[in-house]
Amino acid sequence: MAVGEASFPAMPVIEGIRLGTAMAGFKTPGRRDLVVVELPETTTLAATFTRNAFCAAPVHVARRHLEAQAPRYLLVNTGNANAGTGEQGMRDAEASCEALASLAGVSAQSVLPFSTGVIGEPLPVTRLCDALPDALSALNADGWHAAAEGILTTDTRPKGATRQIDIDGHVVTINGIAKGSGMIQPNMATMLGFVFTDAAIDEARLQPLLRAAVDASFNCITVDSDTSTNDACTLAATGRGASIDSDAREARFAAALTEVLVELAQAIIRDAEGATKFVTLEVEGASSRREALDVAFTVAHSPLVKTALYASDANWGRILAAVGRAPVEALDVSRIVIDLGDVRLVENGGRAASYTEEAGSAVMAEAEIAIRIHLGRGDASATVWTSDLSHDYVSINADYRS
Amino acid sequence: MAVGEASFPAMPVIEGIRLGTAMAGFKTPGRRDLVVVELPETTTLAATFTRNAFCAAPVHVARRHLEAQAPRYLLVNTGNANAGTGEQGMRDAEASCEALASLAGVSAQSVLPFSTGVIGEPLPVTRLCDALPDALSALNADGWHAAAEGILTTDTRPKGATRQIDIDGHVVTINGIAKGSGMIQPNMATMLGFVFTDAAIDEARLQPLLRAAVDASFNCITVDSDTSTNDACTLAATGRGASIDSDAREARFAAALTEVLVELAQAIIRDAEGATKFVTLEVEGASSRREALDVAFTVAHSPLVKTALYASDANWGRILAAVGRAPVEALDVSRIVIDLGDVRLVENGGRAASYTEEAGSAVMAEAEIAIRIHLGRGDASATVWTSDLSHDYVSINADYRS
Repeated sequence: MAVGEASFPAMPVIEGIRLGTAMAGFKTPGRRDLVVVELPETTTLAATFTRNAFCAAPVHVARRHLEAQAPRYLLVNTGNANAGTGEQGMRDAEASCEALASLAGVSAQSVLPFSTGVIGEPLPVTRLCDALPDALSALNADGWHAAAEGILTTDTRPKGATRQIDIDGHVVTINGIAKGSGMIQPNMATMLGFVFTDAAIDEARLQPLLRAAVDASFNCITVDSDTSTNDACTLAATGRGASIDSDAREARFAAALTEVLVELAQAIIRDAEGATKFVTLEVEGASSRREALDVAFTVAHSPLVKTALYASDANWGRILAAVGRAPVEALDVSRIVIDLGDVRLVENGGRAASYTEEAGSAVMAEAEIAIRIHLGRGDASATVWTSDLSHDYVSINADYRS
Repeated sequence: MAVGEASFPAMPVIEGIRLGTAMAGFKTPGRRDLVVVELPETTTLAATFTRNAFCAAPVHVARRHLEAQAPRYLLVNTGNANAGTGEQGMRDAEASCEALASLAGVSAQSVLPFSTGVIGEPLPVTRLCDALPDALSALNADGWHAAAEGILTTDTRPKGATRQIDIDGHVVTINGIAKGSGMIQPNMATMLGFVFTDAAIDEARLQPLLRAAVDASFNCITVDSDTSTNDACTLAATGRGASIDSDAREARFAAALTEVLVELAQAIIRDAEGATKFVTLEVEGASSRREALDVAFTVAHSPLVKTALYASDANWGRILAAVGRAPVEALDVSRIVIDLGDVRLVENGGRAASYTEEAGSAVMAEAEIAIRIHLGRGDASATVWTSDLSHDYVSINADYRS
C-alpha cells in the first residue's frame, strides 16, 4: 500500500556525479540491491547519522572515513544492515570499501559505506565484491531512478526530489534520493538519504545547512517510533557551480534544500509500511519547539490513534487521551483546541459544541488528513508527518524475515 | 484471544463488603455493566488515579469526594468513560452519585464514581440511575465474580486475585478485581482495580502501601503505551480484622498486597487486546530503576519487537535496535547481554557466538516468553510485562466503536 499517486521526478544531471547499480543477489533475484555513487574530487560532504547506540558497522566506518579524507564514492547495499554484527561487521564494511577503492583506483578511506536491511546477519561480502565491477561499469550521470530503486527495502516506490534555484544568474541544482518505510523515527538522521548539489559550499557552512534541513524534515516523521541502527543522510556539494559564500545565498540554498528533504521525508511516510493514510500533525501554541514535538510524536505514536485513522473512525477521544498523556507539565486542558481538517473536535476540555459525527467522518474518510492541536501555552510550533497502523503493517513486519 | 488458561479464584467473604451488579444497557443487551460495592462505615480507603491531563469527570469527582468524606459506596459503570465530556460530564458524575446516595440513605460525597469505556460520549445518566435499584437489591457478600464481569470492556475474562495471610493468629484476607485490555500503560494507577481487605489500617499507612504495590504491578505493564483517562485503583480496608499497626505486620501485608496486584496486572496482559504472547521483560544491571524501566518500556513499546513476537520470529536484531534507541546516556553496547529464555542472543555488541536460529525459534514458539537484558552499568533492575502486536489488536481497535 502507499498513499496517493507518485511519480519519480526528472532529475537534472549534476556534472561530475555518476550513479551505478548492480544486482548482488542480497534480496530477491533480479532486483537491484547495490548502488555506487561517484563524486568529483572537488566535493565537500556533510553527513548526519543515527543516534541509536547499536549503530551499524557501516555507520562507524563511514564516520571514520569522513574524518580522514574527502569522499569519492558512496557504496550502498540493501537487504542486509550489517548491524549487530560486532567486530566481523566492521571488518566486512572495511573490506567492501577496500574492494571498491581498489577497482576505482582511490584510497579505501575515500569510500563511505551504507547498508540497510535485516539486522544481525553477516554481510555477504563476497557477493557484494563480485557485483562491484557491474556497478562501476554502469556508472552514468542519469542513474538517479535506478539508484533510487537500488536502495529500497520494504518500500514500494523509489523516492526522489529535485529543485533548481537561481543564485545571482547561475542555476544551482539539488537532487535527492531516499529510502525508508518501516523502523522509521529518524533521530538526527533519516533511514538513508543522499543529496547532491553542484553548488560550492565550504565545510563550515555545509554541516549546519544539512543539520537544519534534516531537523525540519526527516526528524519530523515517524512510522512506528523505531529508530534504525543505520540511519544516515549525506549532502554532497561538487563545487562546480555557483558558490554559496554569503548569508543571503545560504538562506536561498537552505530553503530549497529543506524543500527537497521535506519532499523526500513525506514520500517515506506516503510509502510507510501498510499505510493507508498520510497524516499531518501540526502542534501550535506550545511553550517550546521541543514541547510541540513531544505532543505531536505522542499522538503520532499512539497505536489507538493510528488504528482509528486506519478505520477512518473520527474517534477524537483517542487523540484527546494521547495529548493528555504527552510529557508536558501542567497542561491546562481547558485551553486546548483540536481540529481535524476544518472540523473542530475539541474545545473547553471536551467535544466542541459545533462537532458532528458526520463532519468528522467525512474528513477521516480522506487519504490525507491534517490534525491541528493548539495548546494555548505559547508561540512555538512543530509539524510531524505520520501514517496509520493497518493489518498490512502487522503482516509486513510479522513476515519480514520469512 | 488471551494467553494461557485462566480461572476466576474462589474469593472469601470479607465481612461488611457487599457487591451488586445490574444491566443498565450501556453495552450489549444482557451484559452486566453497572457495579455497586458497599463498604462498612469503619472503612479507610486509599486510591491512585491516572496522570493523564485529560482525566475523566469521575476521576475528578472521586478525588473530591474522597477528600471530603469516608467512602461508603463504589459506583462503577462500563461502556462509557465519561471522559472529554467537559462540565456536563462533571454534572453527570455528580448526579449518578446523588442518585445512589439517595437510594442508600447516605451522602453523595460518600459515593466514589468510576467509569470505563468509550471516551467523549455523554454518560447516559438516566439509564444508569434506572438500573441502580437492581444493583442495590443484588448486593451480596459473594458477588465478586459478577462484579469482576460487570467492569469489563474489551476484556475477554474477569480478573480476580486473593490472598490470606496470618497476622499473629488472625487471618487477614485481601481480595482484588481489575479490568483492562487496551489503552494500557497505567501511570501511577491502573485501568480499574478495586482491592479490599478486612485488616484495620490507618490512612497514614494505607496510601503508601497502595502506592508501592501499584508501582510494582500496574505501573509495570503496557499493552500499547496509551495511558487511559480513567485509570484508578483503590484499596479499601474495612477495619474489622487484625490491625496492621506495626512495621513488621505492614511488611507482611505489603508482600501479600503486592502479590494480589501483580497477579491482577499480569491477568490484564494475558488478556491484552489481540494478545497471543505473554512477555516478561527483565532489565538488570542498570544504573537506576528509572533507567531499567526506560529500557524495558522502549522494548515493550516497539511495534517491530511486538510484531516479531506475534510472528514467533526470533528477530533479535529488533530487540537490539530498540535497546539501542532507549533514552540512556552513553550506553556501551559491548557490555550488553540479551537472553531470550535460556538462549543467549546478544553479547559483545553482536549476536552471541553460541546462538542458533533453531534454539531462538524454539523459545519464540512458546506462548510465554522471557527477555532478559543486562546493561552492565549498575545494580538496579525492573520487570515489565507486555503483549504482542497482532492482527487482532488492529481489528479490535479499528472496529471498537462500530
